[in-house]
Amino acid sequence: MSSIAHELAKKQKEISVSEFFEKNKQILGFDSLTRALITSVKEPVDNSLDACEEAGVLPDLLVRVEKIDNNEYRVTVEDNGPGIVKKQVPNVFARLLYGSRFHTRSQKRGQQGIGVSAVVMYGQLTTGKATKVKSKISDEDVAYECELILDTKKNRPDIIKDDFVIWDREHGTSFQVYVKGKYIGGKQSIFEYLKGVAIVNPHAKITFVPPEGNTIVFERASENVPPPTKEVKPHPEGVELGELLSMAKYTESLKMTSFLNSEFSRISYRVAREICELAGVQPDLRPDRLALEQAGAILEAIKKVKIMAPETDCLSPIGETLIRKGLKNVLGPLKAEFYAPPITREPKVYAGNPFIVEVGIVYGGQLNREETVQILRFANRVPLMYQQGACAITQAIEAVDWRRYGLEQRGGQGIPFGPAIVLVHVASTKIPFTSESKEAIANIPVIKEEIELALKACARRLKTHLNKAEKRSKTKVKFEIVQDIIPMIAEKSAKIVGKPVPKLAVTITKIMNVVWIEDSIKSEKNRHHISVKIYNYTPKTQSFHLHMLVPYDKIDQKTLKEKPLEIRETNKLTWDVKRIASTEIFELTFDLHGIPLEQYDDNEIYVSGIDAASIIGAEVLPGDWDLEHLKITEEGETEPGEDGEEGEVDYDEGAEVINNEE
Amino acid sequence: MSSIAHELAKKQKEISVSEFFEKNKQILGFDSLTRALITSVKEPVDNSLDACEEAGVLPDLLVRVEKIDNNEYRVTVEDNGPGIVKKQVPNVFARLLYGSRFHTRSQKRGQQGIGVSAVVMYGQLTTGKATKVKSKISDEDVAYECELILDTKKNRPDIIKDDFVIWDREHGTSFQVYVKGKYIGGKQSIFEYLKGVAIVNPHAKITFVPPEGNTIVFERASENVPPPTKEVKPHPEGVELGELLSMAKYTESLKMTSFLNSEFSRISYRVAREICELAGVQPDLRPDRLALEQAGAILEAIKKVKIMAPETDCLSPIGETLIRKGLKNVLGPLKAEFYAPPITREPKVYAGNPFIVEVGIVYGGQLNREETVQILRFANRVPLMYQQGACAITQAIEAVDWRRYGLEQRGGQGIPFGPAIVLVHVASTKIPFTSESKEAIANIPVIKEEIELALKACARRLKTHLNKAEKRSKTKVKFEIVQDIIPMIAEKSAKIVGKPVPKLAVTITKIMNVVWIEDSIKSEKNRHHISVKIYNYTPKTQSFHLHMLVPYDKIDQKTLKEKPLEIRETNKLTWDVKRIASTEIFELTFDLHGIPLEQYDDNEIYVSGIDAASIIGAEVLPGDWDLEHLKITEEGETEPGEDGEEGEVDYDEGAEVINNEE
Repeated sequence: MSSIAHELAKKQKEISVSEFFEKNKQILGFDSLTRALITSVKEPVDNSLDACEEAGVLPDLLVRVEKIDNNEYRVTVEDNGPGIVKKQVPNVFARLLYGSRFHTRSQKRGQQGIGVSAVVMYGQLTTGKATKVKSKISDEDVAYECELILDTKKNRPDIIKDDFVIWDREHGTSFQVYVKGKYIGGKQSIFEYLKGVAIVNPHAKITFVPPEGNTIVFERASENVPPPTKEVKPHPEGVELGELLSMAKYTESLKMTSFLNSEFSRISYRVAREICELAGVQPDLRPDRLALEQAGAILEAIKKVKIMAPETDCLSPIGETLIRKGLKNVLGPLKAEFYAPPITREPKVYAGNPFIVEVGIVYGGQLNREETVQILRFANRVPLMYQQGACAITQAIEAVDWRRYGLEQRGGQGIPFGPAIVLVHVASTKIPFTSESKEAIANIPVIKEEIELALKACARRLKTHLNKAEKRSKTKVKFEIVQDIIPMIAEKSAKIVGKPVPKLAVTITKIMNVVWIEDSIKSEKNRHHISVKIYNYTPKTQSFHLHMLVPYDKIDQKTLKEKPLEIRETNKLTWDVKRIASTEIFELTFDLHGIPLEQYDDNEIYVSGIDAASIIGAEVLPGDWDLEHLKITEEGETEPGEDGEEGEVDYDEGAEVINNEE
Repeated sequence: MSSIAHELAKKQKEISVSEFFEKNKQILGFDSLTRALITSVKEPVDNSLDACEEAGVLPDLLVRVEKIDNNEYRVTVEDNGPGIVKKQVPNVFARLLYGSRFHTRSQKRGQQGIGVSAVVMYGQLTTGKATKVKSKISDEDVAYECELILDTKKNRPDIIKDDFVIWDREHGTSFQVYVKGKYIGGKQSIFEYLKGVAIVNPHAKITFVPPEGNTIVFERASENVPPPTKEVKPHPEGVELGELLSMAKYTESLKMTSFLNSEFSRISYRVAREICELAGVQPDLRPDRLALEQAGAILEAIKKVKIMAPETDCLSPIGETLIRKGLKNVLGPLKAEFYAPPITREPKVYAGNPFIVEVGIVYGGQLNREETVQILRFANRVPLMYQQGACAITQAIEAVDWRRYGLEQRGGQGIPFGPAIVLVHVASTKIPFTSESKEAIANIPVIKEEIELALKACARRLKTHLNKAEKRSKTKVKFEIVQDIIPMIAEKSAKIVGKPVPKLAVTITKIMNVVWIEDSIKSEKNRHHISVKIYNYTPKTQSFHLHMLVPYDKIDQKTLKEKPLEIRETNKLTWDVKRIASTEIFELTFDLHGIPLEQYDDNEIYVSGIDAASIIGAEVLPGDWDLEHLKITEEGETEPGEDGEEGEVDYDEGAEVINNEE
């Protein structure tokens, strides 16, 4: 028995991180040939985009995939980023766990210092060939070029050869690797990945040269580099005891209050003193003398003290417009029935890291009704292609009872069936991926919960639409019956009693008793003719407010006869609909110009100052579009201020119906 | 722009592997408090079982979970393994990527050199407390005890204090860690995990002391340590080009042939020469001079040459009995209708690693018909509790069209609905997990494919049963009708024509024309009375062979009146059913004793020498139970040797209906 212990002891040894991943390449995203090829494109593309953004450059990327041999491909990714200084090139590309973004807390695509070196390692493992990197920084005349492999026993770069070469780019980096892989089209393909990247990074131009067929250029749709996301200190929420102790040990601060204030975000001196007091810790205690129990007390106190929500300038959500565009792009030529207005939640925190969840849903039309809904996942503006089942996004979708929102779902769990695409984006200063392959977000309770809340909020908008559609269709049937039958009865009765046929409009309004709103968009190139017709099928004269989400500066003013009562935040327009007599029609029309249809393909119409039950074709304005100051001056049936009334749908849990612009 | 490149360069730095995992603890299985606590139990338990097996010791484990404080628990895992020598204790428990099992190719639970040190790190991170380890090897009088933390900046152990202490155990190791966690019951609980471990490791005794309630002892069900799994060389299948080059560079062999023979399994000198010849490589080339193109040619040649399937003695499947037992245990008090005979596939290879897939299915009875089937996943005898959606096992289940096998499944994909539990075990010299938390098997194509084949093979057995059940139930209805109506008609007719009522048995047999087999098991303690009644409802005299899977040495010979014609492999019994006249009954009875009911709860009955369509209540013997030598001596309707006929179910793809014993 003892000899066994000694025998086993002899076998104990260190495993280099590169040996580990060489034998576990599936963890890095190289589990199948198709996925391996996508990963080999994804990692350098992520790096290029990060580098361009850090330098404030509009990214211009070239991605070329060439077939060299059966199952062997050459992948080239070239960018116009700031370039990498010569000394760092080998480490950046051929050393695992080496990088610039791991130790910072800001929203980046790459955070691990593994990705691109893993591609180099996978390439040499499967093809025996070195990777070629060329990089030029703007104050050098020449580019530095080298051929690299990763020495997996030592986890260090091995430079096969290097040189300075002429490169016509002013600055940038080119990465060229040979990998074993398999090129395919379809859902999980390089093309789809790049399309996804282009959608959520409209400031990037991406040129894709596939192994066969024509070059595809994803043109830049915006000339603005997203504002650089700020680096932040950890938010005190979710900081662990051991972490606090370790921070206290290594801080340069000499007092607890200055330590708390300087090492965490959102802790002012006042709050720091409050925390110390609550915890029973001297505010001027030297942090490196903080005892275990005291640290525990500090954490407890942090939970009790009111601390501001995290900063948002460290995060870069993709926003309503891009969510719609993303959904539209996936639809392709198919027409959908309804885009639920996307949801962007307020930032929350896990383990000190701020994060934001965004959700968009598109429904109906030509989408397949017999399949499960399609799920689009994004993390820090990167499309997630694999491991859907492992992802907190999927798990959140499975946990929602979609039957409540009009989708089919057996037993109220699992991925629902129905004609819908659900898009979810999680942005964070650190995305907690389930593995180094960065394809699935881990099931951290607070993150999953946020995703669920965002899904439900967006789903409620879908449900509202479905209710409205159902109500409208029922009313339509009623209408048709009423308009067919009442005149017949009237005619017959008139004949029998020998009197003239009575006027029926008033009778019909009494039976219908609704204000019917019909809207349309007619487009010609980039000019869109908008019409909103309001039929008063009630016996009373009606006055109320009509609200629309319209970019005011895109309205052709010549065409706008009815001026809005108010314009807020450039696109929240309110009209005063005054005194439409019973059986009368009011029409609001204007033209939009200078925007593509995809930026305005649905009229979002709300009303206030009128009972929800009396309106068909518009929703009652939710409470957050504050209108206290607007007065309905005439015989409105409800008082202003009751706008919060929401019919059968509840907008709780912080859901906002009108999103902030990006 | 240049200043940005220099600025970014300054931020570039190395990330220690422990810093990486400290910030990505979700990758290691610490994403939620409940899972963190389970992982903290799982990792040391895996290690203890591996250590015991390596030393050939019957494991005797103590697992204690104590609640220290709100969300803080103390986990203790103690084993009777060989112990760890003093010098290695700190490295084994407080250094990531350090261990004895990474560099060997054999079936072990731990393979990464990360798990237990990750628990130590998680413990100190969340509670600020050190881990206490005590270990004793058998030739020392005292145990070595130390308190450890992991210095995450350096990835090295930090010994807080250590000492030699008296320990009454002869040898073994005790591990005690404080962690932040949450203790729960139910499906994903420590209790369920340990139950799963106990089921597939019947040689282990596990004592579990939960935070509250009574101590639970999972008693040893077998006194045999599983034979130690052999360490093997890589199988040449799936070896990568770069790997081959690297092996050739570092080998001690001086010729290609001896290199291929000595570094790979299943390559004899003859095969090695054949490979070299096919590749156009000199057999006596020095391996370190192997060029890239030559290496490629060698790999191509390996694909063409016939190479034996991998050894099986490096793998330890759990086997039919334990699969059944596992399923039964999950059922608990519920009664099922049918256990599909489990499938154990032949070993296959991925990336040089042999692996085996096993599948068992239990169906019907009191299982819930309205939910998705329950999935039980095992890898190298470890139950997988989390990340079901990420696992190749789940993906294989989702890819099978279960509608073909009698389960509900919308669109023929996704997890099917129905009253069933599906158990899958994958055993390999290296399980390719999707992440370091070892909860999901990566989607390696050859592995997923093997799982699918095993699932389908087992599902066909289920389908056969369902067909049989349906056929039997239909025949039963027909029977009842026939037996009710024919006599009435006979009686009426007799009355009308004024003749006596005719004898009907012969008429009924003509209408029914089946041999009806009814079997039963009546148990009293560990004695089971087996009865197989054969009704000949055909107009002819019938002779055929009846086969049963019965452990012959457990038959109480006094009770066995009909001696079998043949006994093969101790449990394949064949009886000669001779000349049952039309309308007659033949009964076979015997008692089994000395085995628990769970080891014999279903009569597996097959027939041969008779047409499949004529039999209700037994299946036609599949072809692999070779019976060429047995002769049906009398008027059997089919000739022996046609046993391969299988009705509507096809047993292709190497599925075996009669499994080999473990």
